[in-house]
Amino acid sequence: MHGYEEHREQHLAALRRVEGQVRGIARMVEEDKYCVDILTQVSAATRALQSVALHLLEEHLSHCVAGAVEDPTVLAEKLAEAHTAIARLVRS
Amino acid sequence: MHGYEEHREQHLAALRRVEGQVRGIARMVEEDKYCVDILTQVSAATRALQSVALHLLEEHLSHCVAGAVEDPTVLAEKLAEAHTAIARLVRS
Amino acid sequence: MHGYEEHREQHLAALRRVEGQVRGIARMVEEDKYCVDILTQVSAATRALQSVALHLLEEHLSHCVAGAVEDPTVLAEKLAEAHTAIARLVRS
Amino acid sequence: MHGYEEHREQHLAALRRVEGQVRGIARMVEEDKYCVDILTQVSAATRALQSVALHLLEEHLSHCVAGAVEDPTVLAEKLAEAHTAIARLVRS
Repeated sequence: MHGYEEHREQHLAALRRVEGQVRGIARMVEEDKYCVDILTQVSAATRALQSVALHLLEEHLSHCVAGAVEDPTVLAEKLAEAHTAIARLVRS
Repeated sequence: MHGYEEHREQHLAALRRVEGQVRGIARMVEEDKYCVDILTQVSAATRALQSVALHLLEEHLSHCVAGAVEDPTVLAEKLAEAHTAIARLVRS
Repeated sequence: MHGYEEHREQHLAALRRVEGQVRGIARMVEEDKYCVDILTQVSAATRALQSVALHLLEEHLSHCVAGAVEDPTVLAEKLAEAHTAIARLVRS
Repeated sequence: MHGYEEHREQHLAALRRVEGQVRGIARMVEEDKYCVDILTQVSAATRALQSVALHLLEEHLSHCVAGAVEDPTVLAEKLAEAHTAIARLVRS
């Protein structure tokens, strides 16, 4: 059982919205919309994806990581793994 | 005619791929995949979106902006508008 | 004459502030301050640097780029160069 | 005792380098260097600061957070606090 199960429906709803945003951006490109307006929508979709990532990460830290406290080796692994994911988010 | 028309098919293909990535992320959430693996996919989709934005911006600068050179007022407007879009990308 | 001359004093003042922020962060590390408080200051310094970059870029676009309009080859070069700088900012 | 003590000298050295980079950027502005070259240096300083932040965070997770495992309340607080710092880094 993963940390995000509790809010799974929320994550799915947020991801469906991002999917719709990306489809909307493709439609704007097809319909020759003005580039700056397309860029505004791309920034919005990027921020929405970032927000999903931060929520998943929060739950990961408070469930998977906090759930590994009995075993220092597993905990160290979980923290190292979480750090790799965080570095990727910060740099993307 | 907008700057991105020339590469419209490429942009559409890239956006379809991002849409597929986001749908894939939703599927991972539904199937209870491991959070860290989901985060990896979210980072990849974010970078892909950023890359679409940078291509659209490049074409916008070289077509719409460069196409406004005869009129200093229009050029100033286009550059101010491009700058707003850039600031949004840098901060998102 | 570069685009940023007009606001040179403002840029210098902003950069002195960032320099002070970074020195303050080093002092916090020396004095064993709490890591989360240090991270807050690092985020603030990063945003301040980003803000300097966006101001420099805005002036670059409106002076150097807009000043190259008589020569399409030079303009294309300036825009390509600006785009490289923008991509670096978006990805950093 | 904080997580970063072990690598304090490395963090201080990295921060001194960033301070030198920012001072170098101010010098470039004073000496009227070309804006695009200044932007390249700003991107480098931003990435260097980000890298310090990620190292501090890594140590924070593996010391302060991992050190709070005996007390679930404290651990939850530490994780929530770390998440706030991470969200700030991701968004800056």
